[in-house]
Amino acid sequence: MRRESRAARRPIGVFDSGIGGLTVFKELARRLPHEDLIYFGDTAHIPYGSKTPEAVRRYSLTVARFLEKQGIKAMVVACNTSSALALSALKKAMKVPVLGVIEPGARAALDGGAAGPIGVIGTDATINSKAYDRALKGARAIGQACPLFVPLVEEGWWSKDVTASVAREYLAVFKKKRPKTLILGCTHYPLLARTIGAILGRGVRLVDPAVETARETGRMLAERGLLRISGKGKRVFFVSDASKRFLTVARRLGVPIKSVRLHSFDI
Amino acid sequence: MRRESRAARRPIGVFDSGIGGLTVFKELARRLPHEDLIYFGDTAHIPYGSKTPEAVRRYSLTVARFLEKQGIKAMVVACNTSSALALSALKKAMKVPVLGVIEPGARAALDGGAAGPIGVIGTDATINSKAYDRALKGARAIGQACPLFVPLVEEGWWSKDVTASVAREYLAVFKKKRPKTLILGCTHYPLLARTIGAILGRGVRLVDPAVETARETGRMLAERGLLRISGKGKRVFFVSDASKRFLTVARRLGVPIKSVRLHSFDI
Repeated sequence: MRRESRAARRPIGVFDSGIGGLTVFKELARRLPHEDLIYFGDTAHIPYGSKTPEAVRRYSLTVARFLEKQGIKAMVVACNTSSALALSALKKAMKVPVLGVIEPGARAALDGGAAGPIGVIGTDATINSKAYDRALKGARAIGQACPLFVPLVEEGWWSKDVTASVAREYLAVFKKKRPKTLILGCTHYPLLARTIGAILGRGVRLVDPAVETARETGRMLAERGLLRISGKGKRVFFVSDASKRFLTVARRLGVPIKSVRLHSFDI
Repeated sequence: MRRESRAARRPIGVFDSGIGGLTVFKELARRLPHEDLIYFGDTAHIPYGSKTPEAVRRYSLTVARFLEKQGIKAMVVACNTSSALALSALKKAMKVPVLGVIEPGARAALDGGAAGPIGVIGTDATINSKAYDRALKGARAIGQACPLFVPLVEEGWWSKDVTASVAREYLAVFKKKRPKTLILGCTHYPLLARTIGAILGRGVRLVDPAVETARETGRMLAERGLLRISGKGKRVFFVSDASKRFLTVARRLGVPIKSVRLHSFDI
């Protein structure tokens, strides 16, 4: 029987700009049930999607330093904006392995093997960064920023008519050059998958990078002998600004959270 | 002829969570053309409206300290959320007089003299704080948070159909108990005045606190012998996170800004 190394018993850090990353957390918890997970939602600085690359990097590094102090063995950057803008800075600054959602998301989109362009929707910052375009290596990407999707999800308007109207505006670009695959390049967007799917029709496959990210995290830990193989993983949640909404949205997402710890930064 | 004191020659600080405060800035610049104005938009922490009172106070005090170092003679808190949650903390911490927008806004609403309840729309944080209810002294306030208005304005969707749909959802509460007066309790909302007015009808007077705030600033400076009476006021703009959008929105608002200075905080 294999034995777990001491290092394997350390938790995985999951970092997001706020609440949306719980979609990634949920997938990690499902696929890696033995792992201890520490989630950090930087609710003090949410949203990242309309901030500059410099600000996103500064926030990301600060959260990463905090998670490293918690003794994590690896960090998953659940936030697409941070993955797009801060991943290489995080990899450089941290001693533990760091995974983002962009590479796995792009790979999952390419795995479909369909010809033609691949659609990408995300925040202003993610789309402007062209990070998905680079990760899609040669495949033609059609990017579309959907800045109102995050506030709509945060407001809980997941299936209102008005949300569909906003979605129709943003997705109009995909009506002409119909991609077969659309990457949901922001952790909030899977919550709008039904609305988005109804607008684009059945011919378009929606890719949620969370699934492939969780798979890749497992692979990477196994390769390094860091995978936990027994026990029930503990889950701890931190936010940088206390938010009742965090618990509400978590409940809706089917992530049972009993308590959230507040860790605020200097400003 | 009166002479200006040395103290009068110092600038006025105008503080906002981001871009919206330019509606207040514009009114100050119009009414007090001789004054030097230093505007600070805390775009690194925008939006304030969904953050906790503790976070809003921390951000506000940090910006205030920066403005005080610039040698201001008074500070106008253009942001309703900061006025609602941080005004007393700011007054306590600062040596110069501090004015918010809530008291002037409430006074302007009461000045109409109309009987019946007064409607107030604002961010989650402003409405939850009940700051307008208190300032309206006895008059019955009907508060309604409109969290999507800020992102809609920031997206530039000032007069889209979808914005009207969102507004109809939020303003439905005013259809039954029709107030004669509605306070636009967030600096972004005057930009939606046309949409809001069309929904509520001509019988409802919309109050923008900016007008009365600028008037009160002038009165307060005059009383203290701090009013500038000649010269062309200089205008300086700072943001805590560089944002192209700042210049775009400023242009749309008719506030000509040539350049914006970046002053970022530690995080």
